[in-house]
Amino acid sequence: MPDNPVNPVNQLDELLHQRYRLGIMAFLSSIDGAEFTRLRSSLGLTDGNLNRHLAVLDDAGYVAIAKAPVKSSRARTWVRLTDKGRAALDAHVATLRAILDTIG
Amino acid sequence: MPDNPVNPVNQLDELLHQRYRLGIMAFLSSIDGAEFTRLRSSLGLTDGNLNRHLAVLDDAGYVAIAKAPVKSSRARTWVRLTDKGRAALDAHVATLRAILDTIG
Repeated sequence: MPDNPVNPVNQLDELLHQRYRLGIMAFLSSIDGAEFTRLRSSLGLTDGNLNRHLAVLDDAGYVAIAKAPVKSSRARTWVRLTDKGRAALDAHVATLRAILDTIG
Repeated sequence: MPDNPVNPVNQLDELLHQRYRLGIMAFLSSIDGAEFTRLRSSLGLTDGNLNRHLAVLDDAGYVAIAKAPVKSSRARTWVRLTDKGRAALDAHVATLRAILDTIG
């Protein structure tokens, strides 16, 4: 990595860089949306931890969270990537790949 | 990213994943070592922040820090990657690339 007053690590989106949030975004990137429980089992997180990370992503506008009512049972929580989230993820991935490509 | 009880994000080294520490390791990966001030200017960090991140990497055995005496001036601080740090970085990069490759 060359000397650079604007080192690319400064361009990494810290909100997305957190490993579980990166995992959530990666999981959602190739599907239309996922149920909370499926995300939870994929990431191996507790309900509380997943909720906390989803709240951060939701506050940033990177994911949309909706309750889908299910007959005679609890509503299911669906999570999907927003266009803003997709754009942020694409930019993050490009920056990250550029950094990884400098590693000798 | 497929459903996986051991999602690869769980294998990311959190110590290395922090963006400035990733930047330090990336910077050191292609050179024999760097002076503290050069690292600082590359990363755009304050002395205190760089010292804090280097202490974490040093405690993990990922970098070696040495004072090189300089005639009639303050000792220069040299930082280099250790073999352990190189191995950890290589593993981290491989896991990260595998995650990025799942992003649709």
